Amino acid sequence: MAYISLDPKLPGMRGLLAFRPAIAPPLLTLMQTVMRSNEGLSMGERELIATYVSTLNDCYNCHQIHGEVAQCFFDDQPDLVQQIKENFKDAPISERQKAILEIAGNIQKGGKFVTEKQIEKAKLLGISDLEIHDTVLIASLFCFFNRYIDGLGIQSSDTPDTFKARAKMIAELGYHS
Amino acid sequence: MAYISLDPKLPGMRGLLAFRPAIAPPLLTLMQTVMRSNEGLSMGERELIATYVSTLNDCYNCHQIHGEVAQCFFDDQPDLVQQIKENFKDAPISERQKAILEIAGNIQKGGKFVTEKQIEKAKLLGISDLEIHDTVLIASLFCFFNRYIDGLGIQSSDTPDTFKARAKMIAELGYHS
Repeated sequence: MAYISLDPKLPGMRGLLAFRPAIAPPLLTLMQTVMRSNEGLSMGERELIATYVSTLNDCYNCHQIHGEVAQCFFDDQPDLVQQIKENFKDAPISERQKAILEIAGNIQKGGKFVTEKQIEKAKLLGISDLEIHDTVLIASLFCFFNRYIDGLGIQSSDTPDTFKARAKMIAELGYHS
Repeated sequence: MAYISLDPKLPGMRGLLAFRPAIAPPLLTLMQTVMRSNEGLSMGERELIATYVSTLNDCYNCHQIHGEVAQCFFDDQPDLVQQIKENFKDAPISERQKAILEIAGNIQKGGKFVTEKQIEKAKLLGISDLEIHDTVLIASLFCFFNRYIDGLGIQSSDTPDTFKARAKMIAELGYHS
């Protein structure tokens, strides 16, 4: 049970957006802008950052849905998201992608856990300022969403199948309301 | 030095909004919606939550500016913000305000640190669903801003006087660009 009275027909984030409708437009616009771009980081890489940070924050709603969205973008590697959730360092991703997830993992602990050394390593691997920016932005944003959802005691009513179905729609259509 | 190349004439958050202009409108709209309301929590109480969470996250930029904004709303208690930064439990605020800051402090640790017991206590003190929601929302949002700013190595170029001057403008005019 959520800690506040929400419409039971609107599970997860949707109940919160309906409870406080004024915040829905800026939050959805922010998500659409931040997550639905292939400039620098690909959409799939953005979803991997969201999934990884949500896993570290143990936010079931977020790591399930964004994990399924991420998996839609890597359909030739059907175990990729699960491998990243378990230990990204052993996952079949590039050194560049590992450096990005390393920064994201430090953001999850706190802003000051990102160090000049991590950033230098990322830049040596060819990661651009825009990519560093977006990594920090996305990782920070999911530290928000994870807390917002779990801090209000939001329970998931999704099944593995409904997660997959919603994720497919998001992967195709994005985060517009 | 910030970890990425930003316009040195635009310190703090402003440099980031200029670096990635598409995110400025939703972030400013979100701040304006969440922070500039007296429905339930007062604007001053919202700024106290922002200040307290930013202090726990050790985000100098955020706890300084929002501390000064908060202080504008409590000008009959000139040491209030400093007392809250040091130990809100000893500060001259109501039990209701202490319960709100207790929830905010748990959000800073992670969404799952908010418990049914804390929420029950808040409700017994007359704190409404909307106030609980907005407390969690604001505390979570500053876990985002703090990470976004410190995770990119953003340094402050403000002095105590420029913080106060900017805070006065924000307290009067809000967060519109």
